[in-house]
Amino acid sequence: MFLQTISDAAGATALPQPYLLFLGDTVEPGFAKTAFGLRDWAPEKCTAEYALPGATVTTGLPAMSPAQAHQAGARALLIGVANSGGVLPDNWLPALVEALEAGLDIVSGLHMRLAESPILADTAARLGRRLIDVRHPPHDIKIGTGRKRSGKRLLTVGTDCALGKKYTALAVARGFADRGVDSDFRATGQTGIMIAGGGIPMDAVVSDFEAGAAEMLSPDSAPDHWDVIEGQGSLFHPVYAAVSMGLLHGSQPDCIIVCHHPGRTEMLGTPGYALPSVEEAIDLNLRVGGRTNPAIRCAGIAFNTAYLDEGEAVALMAEESRRLGLPVADPIRRGAAFDQLIDNCLS
Amino acid sequence: MFLQTISDAAGATALPQPYLLFLGDTVEPGFAKTAFGLRDWAPEKCTAEYALPGATVTTGLPAMSPAQAHQAGARALLIGVANSGGVLPDNWLPALVEALEAGLDIVSGLHMRLAESPILADTAARLGRRLIDVRHPPHDIKIGTGRKRSGKRLLTVGTDCALGKKYTALAVARGFADRGVDSDFRATGQTGIMIAGGGIPMDAVVSDFEAGAAEMLSPDSAPDHWDVIEGQGSLFHPVYAAVSMGLLHGSQPDCIIVCHHPGRTEMLGTPGYALPSVEEAIDLNLRVGGRTNPAIRCAGIAFNTAYLDEGEAVALMAEESRRLGLPVADPIRRGAAFDQLIDNCLS
Repeated sequence: MFLQTISDAAGATALPQPYLLFLGDTVEPGFAKTAFGLRDWAPEKCTAEYALPGATVTTGLPAMSPAQAHQAGARALLIGVANSGGVLPDNWLPALVEALEAGLDIVSGLHMRLAESPILADTAARLGRRLIDVRHPPHDIKIGTGRKRSGKRLLTVGTDCALGKKYTALAVARGFADRGVDSDFRATGQTGIMIAGGGIPMDAVVSDFEAGAAEMLSPDSAPDHWDVIEGQGSLFHPVYAAVSMGLLHGSQPDCIIVCHHPGRTEMLGTPGYALPSVEEAIDLNLRVGGRTNPAIRCAGIAFNTAYLDEGEAVALMAEESRRLGLPVADPIRRGAAFDQLIDNCLS
Repeated sequence: MFLQTISDAAGATALPQPYLLFLGDTVEPGFAKTAFGLRDWAPEKCTAEYALPGATVTTGLPAMSPAQAHQAGARALLIGVANSGGVLPDNWLPALVEALEAGLDIVSGLHMRLAESPILADTAARLGRRLIDVRHPPHDIKIGTGRKRSGKRLLTVGTDCALGKKYTALAVARGFADRGVDSDFRATGQTGIMIAGGGIPMDAVVSDFEAGAAEMLSPDSAPDHWDVIEGQGSLFHPVYAAVSMGLLHGSQPDCIIVCHHPGRTEMLGTPGYALPSVEEAIDLNLRVGGRTNPAIRCAGIAFNTAYLDEGEAVALMAEESRRLGLPVADPIRRGAAFDQLIDNCLS
């Protein structure tokens, strides 16, 4: 099991596991990305799936009722589907109440808090169950200190938002585990937190506490232990760079991997803002990150090449690797280039 | 009146004015920095002072009861003293209730919210008065857009925290006003907000909204209007840089002034972290700020030279000005160097 809970990071959310994946009445696979992410990255944490009549989406896991799942070991129903607006539909409520009555807590990444539903709040209070909203950070985050912590850390950073920082961190953590390296994936966004079973939603932390939250997320560890930390946003993003800045300072990474989408020309959501080059992103991240860890280095580049065919992607990455003098790999395609990237992180 | 309210910045706190400055039973002038700041920087917003028996600190303003102050035009009692812990002492409560009954709202920068006191909450509700905690940001801050806004902006940035960014911005705003330049001081911390009569406490904003809050703080304005924005923290501070980053991106400054304390060797509160050089601070701030305003430039340096005598300070600033090729001035000492700094901002 390469993904562990982070109950050792005092105060960071530690989720009840394993999960019963709730699919609602979803007919659109795109809305079930959370459930698929859980199945792909934390199968040992997924007992079964549970869908309402009319749902056509499936993860391929066994279908169980909440009572059956509880009997099979599940400890929480996890809402594995998003819906537009982030609000809990009324027709899901009977199933969620059923889960609470079957002995399961509920884990949600929806924008709306679970306890805003009176029937869920009342039922959970009556039965002593937990309603856990992973979009909301813990209340006991402290101001950072800048103190150097023991152990090794890797942070995925980006030229932009939404181009593979979570996926890259998960793939690197798995690569480390495959080589027998003691490591933890440290999650900073809601889907990552569900996969890891814990973490801190860094974009929801008050800015004065941003670096402190990152410090709390990856505490002191054994000298050869690696924390592989999911990056957020980009130092170059005109809207979200505050999140990236605090996460970089507080993470004190020994290694960064720069995640990039070579086919994207404009920053997500901000027309007119060009993506920085990979070299600019390496340079600024090393400069800023060097403030809290002077030994920081860039171990390589993760390209998102889904828009290219295999031959084009491999050729582009080989050319960029020669030009930059660093491993360049697509963590979805894997292959020899990805092995080189993992090797370079550990070298 | 060079300081105006920012009720034009939709949603940013706009405080009821003028104020009756409340001094509690304070005997230590250091605890009354807020009251002195108001007297020095916004005298037109200060009707009178009000102290409890035993107080020895005075601002020199006329002493009035809440009823007298209301009659004289005051619209709020402003708590002008801090106390250790940021909690409201019980022996202040009768005076605060008296103020509400006299028709005044209450403005506080204490950590504790005013409404946590049941008697204040009840009295304010009964009389329809407002209890305003300036440490807490407005609820309607939106995600930023990165869109370029009209008008001119200046931001004070720092090599560290607590070395004169607020004071420099206030002095520059006054210098602009003295030259007849249309400008507003935009406050980002609690004392600044009380002085300006509005603003956003940037360190209390959720990090995802940090740049958006800065965008809201200095909205579109006339082409030759200047917003002079109070800086926070430092891009180099291992704990607070997230605040500085979002504020820099969202402010889109045309000019920065780098604030520095030449006698300080270590970052505030983080042992082992050296201050960056002025050149490093100029370079990184221009690089990061250039992302949202490619025309950004450094107009000069503000030195905090309180630890030097006049001759030493003037000699050091002249030497540094030659070396850096920029005006270097102490906004408390003023003089010709400060005039040059103002000129260079407007050039």
